[in-house]
Amino acid sequence: MKKVIILGSSGSIGLQTADICLQLKDKISVVGLSVRSKTEVLKKQIKTFKPKAICLEESADNFSNFKNWIKINSPKTKLFFGAVGLEKLVSSVEADTLVAAIVGAAALKPIIAAIKTKKNIALANKEIVVMAGAEIMKLAAENGVSILPVDSEHSAVFQCSRGEDKKQIKNIILTASGGPFYKYDGDFSKITADKALKHPTWKMGRKITIDSATLMNKGLEAIEASVLFGLPIDRIKIVIHPQSIIHSLVEYVDGAALAQLSNPDMRLPIQYALTYPRRMPSKFIKPLNLAALSKLEFFEPDFKKFPCLKLAYSAANAGGAQPAILNAANETAVEAFLDGRILFTDIAKIVEKTMKLFKGIKKTGIDSLIEADLAARKKAHSLIESAESNLK
Amino acid sequence: MKKVIILGSSGSIGLQTADICLQLKDKISVVGLSVRSKTEVLKKQIKTFKPKAICLEESADNFSNFKNWIKINSPKTKLFFGAVGLEKLVSSVEADTLVAAIVGAAALKPIIAAIKTKKNIALANKEIVVMAGAEIMKLAAENGVSILPVDSEHSAVFQCSRGEDKKQIKNIILTASGGPFYKYDGDFSKITADKALKHPTWKMGRKITIDSATLMNKGLEAIEASVLFGLPIDRIKIVIHPQSIIHSLVEYVDGAALAQLSNPDMRLPIQYALTYPRRMPSKFIKPLNLAALSKLEFFEPDFKKFPCLKLAYSAANAGGAQPAILNAANETAVEAFLDGRILFTDIAKIVEKTMKLFKGIKKTGIDSLIEADLAARKKAHSLIESAESNLK
Repeated sequence: MKKVIILGSSGSIGLQTADICLQLKDKISVVGLSVRSKTEVLKKQIKTFKPKAICLEESADNFSNFKNWIKINSPKTKLFFGAVGLEKLVSSVEADTLVAAIVGAAALKPIIAAIKTKKNIALANKEIVVMAGAEIMKLAAENGVSILPVDSEHSAVFQCSRGEDKKQIKNIILTASGGPFYKYDGDFSKITADKALKHPTWKMGRKITIDSATLMNKGLEAIEASVLFGLPIDRIKIVIHPQSIIHSLVEYVDGAALAQLSNPDMRLPIQYALTYPRRMPSKFIKPLNLAALSKLEFFEPDFKKFPCLKLAYSAANAGGAQPAILNAANETAVEAFLDGRILFTDIAKIVEKTMKLFKGIKKTGIDSLIEADLAARKKAHSLIESAESNLK
Repeated sequence: MKKVIILGSSGSIGLQTADICLQLKDKISVVGLSVRSKTEVLKKQIKTFKPKAICLEESADNFSNFKNWIKINSPKTKLFFGAVGLEKLVSSVEADTLVAAIVGAAALKPIIAAIKTKKNIALANKEIVVMAGAEIMKLAAENGVSILPVDSEHSAVFQCSRGEDKKQIKNIILTASGGPFYKYDGDFSKITADKALKHPTWKMGRKITIDSATLMNKGLEAIEASVLFGLPIDRIKIVIHPQSIIHSLVEYVDGAALAQLSNPDMRLPIQYALTYPRRMPSKFIKPLNLAALSKLEFFEPDFKKFPCLKLAYSAANAGGAQPAILNAANETAVEAFLDGRILFTDIAKIVEKTMKLFKGIKKTGIDSLIEADLAARKKAHSLIESAESNLK
């Protein structure tokens, strides 16, 4: 019986993780849960899993009501609250694996707490790897725990390098669906949030869907792959593959490439991270039928149309705090774009300007990186305000 | 330093194996060689590799000349002769791996001799696996040696199941280029040997090229995969993939599939079998460029147009001596087709008739299978004679 804590259990990845844990209830028990504010979802999950502890990450107006509900419906479940509560939940509850399905930098401290208490990390949060990947990998190695990627691309690379000598990897080739605009020839500044939220192949959260439209998602994934698999960024290649059937490839020194394929469904990489090193039958994943698909296409990504991709490679090459700054500025800019405050094309501009303002800062170490992250967010906010006044 | 014996060193696979051994001469030493009759090729290879022993498989008119040549040019090289000599060569020369690159049933006895003297088998001969696969696998297990597939498809499957629990394999999906006729809508009986010998993606020997045109090659490979990877034949699937970039796939119980890709070049699977478990850089294999390929296509195979495929599955389902009979009849019929004695469509007819005549014979054991093989060849020959008289 594997014990699992799910952070961010009401989000897209969190809900799918819960589905899988329920399907595999003979093999997996959910011992901890957290949501930002969706208490109704959490209540259902508490009834299903009877976890040892849960955490409400944000001040919910009905906190005391919720406390009473717990007392009546699941009296043995311990209740934590806020960011500090999240760390306490992770540290105090015994578990094999932490599923880190919280978006953004908020996942960093709980992940560190989980590693320090010897939990494997099923990692659905690429931002924190971009921000502080080297530090996390070092800490994981020191504590003898595994970082199991949940992103479909990194899970593919992980599967394609299973049983292989990592030194014999020549390149990692990440596939990108290309998002809704890889063929778009119109004015990118006119792209609205509604349009950008319509992803052709993957159903995901809002932030990552916008990142897929700007290709920043693929840039962040390239940095993540570089960190997780220990390869310099110039050996992480990207190819547009609109069908999202090949989830990524590993190219070896002998000229062979291994690829992982499936119908696009996040429940496959999530389950793989939960059951690794075993594979378990899944009732969710539709079997692959290559003849029915008829063809798989591949295109070079256009770094000019998608400047975010270029910025990500620059940040990785610069090293130090630049990836953290890229990520912080992007998170801030995407939020502003989703709120209708800036243009689609402003996202890359704000990221680029923020990166330039912090150029040369060679900080590392988790506390310094958190500091850089906060400073970059502040700067990005003020750049957004100027962009807004230009738009008026 | 790995010691290698190459049987059939003047054939297509043999020559490529020699190229690789020469490229990797710091890692691999060639200690034995055999050819059917091409002594000129053999002389060059003897000068290059200075093998411990060689064998001329067939009565060469210039045998005594050759003996003198050896005495002068490579006096330490021991000379064997004929089918018995081949077994002696294999048994007496110390080596890590035997590369079995002889076409057809003639490879069986030398392979058995190699296994019994604890040599790994790099297997480029699917016929003998079809003929006596179960027996060979059993013998290999008893002697603790590995059967390393050299066929690109089986090498792909081997690579895609590396580090995986074999019990979690759901299906093996063999890709087929489809040969020159998978889209052909004309009269199959009018197909000449010249036309059938023009394979669109692979440069191979004549017999296997005809088998690719009838899809018998894929049928034999399905039987081979079933034997090598221990799966029932109905879990070996076939998909037409004209680009020959994905060399095969393994589908797992969780819905994930792993695929091995490369530009079509036999030197990749040959080298993998020679250097396994390591991968070594190859100067021969052109790196894969998916975007330059632009698309990979997949089609269902047409069992009506290609009756040989259906016959292979029937033979595997029937078991016993039927795969050996299928193989023997096919080898005989293909030879007759290449000699212009029968029609392209007669190949399947002769195989089917031969299989029916030997239906119900449930023999196993290597000697019985060799007997069945010979009887089937004889029967196929007489069927070919009748077909010929019909053609006149």
